[in-house]
Amino acid sequence: MSERIRILGLDPGLRNTGWGIITIEGTKLSYVACGVVTSDGDLALALRLKQLHDKLTEVVTTWTPDEVAVEETFVNKDAQATLKLGQARAMSLLVPALHGLPVAEYGANQVKKTVVGVGHAEKNQVLAMVKVLLPKADPKKADAADALAIAIAHAHHRKARALVAKL
Amino acid sequence: MSERIRILGLDPGLRNTGWGIITIEGTKLSYVACGVVTSDGDLALALRLKQLHDKLTEVVTTWTPDEVAVEETFVNKDAQATLKLGQARAMSLLVPALHGLPVAEYGANQVKKTVVGVGHAEKNQVLAMVKVLLPKADPKKADAADALAIAIAHAHHRKARALVAKL
Repeated sequence: MSERIRILGLDPGLRNTGWGIITIEGTKLSYVACGVVTSDGDLALALRLKQLHDKLTEVVTTWTPDEVAVEETFVNKDAQATLKLGQARAMSLLVPALHGLPVAEYGANQVKKTVVGVGHAEKNQVLAMVKVLLPKADPKKADAADALAIAIAHAHHRKARALVAKL
Repeated sequence: MSERIRILGLDPGLRNTGWGIITIEGTKLSYVACGVVTSDGDLALALRLKQLHDKLTEVVTTWTPDEVAVEETFVNKDAQATLKLGQARAMSLLVPALHGLPVAEYGANQVKKTVVGVGHAEKNQVLAMVKVLLPKADPKKADAADALAIAIAHAHHRKARALVAKL
């Protein structure tokens, strides 16, 4: 019998950070939960980061994942946007680390390639494949669907990554 | 008699985050302490952010500041560097917020203009003025001197900021 591993996928953003929980047992994936945590755009940045920290802490303590996967930030030419995303993303990396959980990072193209088969899939293709792979999932928001896709990518790559880490 | 306020200045960076504590009582500035917290470049990003979080938490609980001032990140054309700095800076904003402390942000030029009198001062001019304004300070590292300069800038601007916030 295979071990059942619970994976938390995170799609970071300052306004909306998507999260999704799945389990993998052998090769069988199962949907557990998903959602979006938000920060209030009217507040100062320090308080927005605290909101993300507090809400992600609640996700981690409620759903007790074994492993966490975070999407690598899309770095673009808008430096202010990159900075904001970096600050939000730090919460997605920090909170699992504070709970002693291993955190893997995946590029957006790697996630799409694993889930859809091509690196430049459209948002709706990712959502459709998430629904095929996790029939019980019905993510209400795109960020939650992306978070589930990141969790699925980690379910596929975690053994190879663990092997590389050992070598 | 004026209230004595203890200010923590922070100069964020992923490898080195400078910190400096001063007090202001009326118009009198006094040096309390300064230093640098570091993260280990060999570790994964999530663990480096945890190191900064843990060490900054120690600074806050040891020195119990009343107010915190953080330097605004210098955004440059190197998106990867901007992203790293954003992630490190999130720790300087989050940790005080988790302790319920007010966090003010100042641009590098605003800090230099307040401390040296011109917005494009050199590093060694900032250090020289920090030593004039805080004779007992002997920062061993540039990041610690910059953090003291940020605390000094906040000491000068905090009343105006509080007034604006009220209006």
